[in-house]
Amino acid sequence: MKTETEALGCFGLPGAFTAEAMTSFFSEEDRTVLYFGTFEELVGAVRTGKVRYGILPIENSSTGGITEVYDLLRGSGCFITGEKCLSVEQYLMGVPGASIEDIRRVYSHPQGFRQSRDFFRRHPRMECIPHFSTAQSADFVGREGKKEQAAVAGQLAARIYGLRILAGPINMSTVNCTRFFVISGKKEKVEGADKITLVLSLAHEPGSLYRALGCFEKGGLNLMNLESRPRENHPFEYFFHIDVMGNLEDPAVHEVLEALQKNTVSCRILGNYRADRGGAS
Amino acid sequence: MKTETEALGCFGLPGAFTAEAMTSFFSEEDRTVLYFGTFEELVGAVRTGKVRYGILPIENSSTGGITEVYDLLRGSGCFITGEKCLSVEQYLMGVPGASIEDIRRVYSHPQGFRQSRDFFRRHPRMECIPHFSTAQSADFVGREGKKEQAAVAGQLAARIYGLRILAGPINMSTVNCTRFFVISGKKEKVEGADKITLVLSLAHEPGSLYRALGCFEKGGLNLMNLESRPRENHPFEYFFHIDVMGNLEDPAVHEVLEALQKNTVSCRILGNYRADRGGAS
Repeated sequence: MKTETEALGCFGLPGAFTAEAMTSFFSEEDRTVLYFGTFEELVGAVRTGKVRYGILPIENSSTGGITEVYDLLRGSGCFITGEKCLSVEQYLMGVPGASIEDIRRVYSHPQGFRQSRDFFRRHPRMECIPHFSTAQSADFVGREGKKEQAAVAGQLAARIYGLRILAGPINMSTVNCTRFFVISGKKEKVEGADKITLVLSLAHEPGSLYRALGCFEKGGLNLMNLESRPRENHPFEYFFHIDVMGNLEDPAVHEVLEALQKNTVSCRILGNYRADRGGAS
Repeated sequence: MKTETEALGCFGLPGAFTAEAMTSFFSEEDRTVLYFGTFEELVGAVRTGKVRYGILPIENSSTGGITEVYDLLRGSGCFITGEKCLSVEQYLMGVPGASIEDIRRVYSHPQGFRQSRDFFRRHPRMECIPHFSTAQSADFVGREGKKEQAAVAGQLAARIYGLRILAGPINMSTVNCTRFFVISGKKEKVEGADKITLVLSLAHEPGSLYRALGCFEKGGLNLMNLESRPRENHPFEYFFHIDVMGNLEDPAVHEVLEALQKNTVSCRILGNYRADRGGAS
């Protein structure tokens, strides 16, 4: 029997790190994949049901949270139903026949450059030109076919766009992981869910964050991540995006959420999903 | 008597928002100003004493913290000696004679585009091309002299680079402030200092952030800002950059710092300076 085919939405292009995360999360091979050039288009397609699930990066272990995605998910009405951590290695790649001495202009997503800062410090002759994504840079360099141009992207992109690896991995950190979220337009119960992402809005008064964190502490919920994001039109007030370990059906978690309702202006659950322990130790 | 002339280091170019913040912070007019194209070069010049003070943006009230600056300051050995909040308004500007209908390509810093997202959603014909800074975009558009090109930058940049305002303010938030830090290579006592920036490194164990925040709470120090930044090579562990109100000479603050030493892996003070209450209410 053929499994049901439901379209997946993927940020970026074939060969992008997000596409790699997608194929390792969704094992079925008979799904249609639509690629989206911006986070906003992808989230819109998930919300309106054009695709069943979407996958997009949320955080890199060297460069931090992808703030645009935090801000989009907060108000999107979408739900996080999965997470995937992927070890990310950046490579310098050029057209066949090019050597590292030929390279004058390098294209990549700004994150690719930031993760590879030290390499470019040692190669000041290479001009770094920001591009929309690592995979798009590889595609662009492949199509232009110029020996003096290179891209910074993953190995898969080199294979897909016919480029040759000239150096790498060139990222500074020996451990460089990116964390991805799988999102859905519908709330759904995930079997074995053990991680919760929520957004708190706090009163602008002393101790409000401390009291909110106290609710998790008292309930024994382990805080995994906390990211503050600005509230627009309220200068220097913040939303707090928080990941804690837990399952929403656990009575202890219920109690924590009730305590949070009393100690915050608002507390919204963005998802309850299975933590991926694969990428990091 | 002429006051001592000591060079100031400013991020960006004349006409940039940072330059505006600088002139409103340093009232003396006889200082030499050196401009730096990257945060890294500026911080390096401050550290080595090439300039006495440096000024650079740290946070925008709509788009959040400038993570690259957080990461640079943490390990730089520089000290924060002042803060300035500036109300920031973005304008679309073109060459004299151009009208808004002519514009096809717009140059700006990605922050300029993010702050003006809604405007560009309403003008899909305009292609947004990332540039190094708002002021550099204005300079570039002025020198190219093409009617179909525009920049997103502040009013001062339009005046300096001879451009005409075509639309604006085009930033979405009615209140859009950027916060700047003044940094020095030397530790110095700032009169009337009432705000402290510090960086905590916490044990990777449950409750560590809650306990650290408890030290501020018990000492009655009001938390103004908290930004988490990744620890390189320690996937999904974080530094916490924290601003609290207080003066390092206050015995109550001493007690808090002592308690923090016991409840954190490390606690480093980046500066004690006067809070600027000008930009935000």
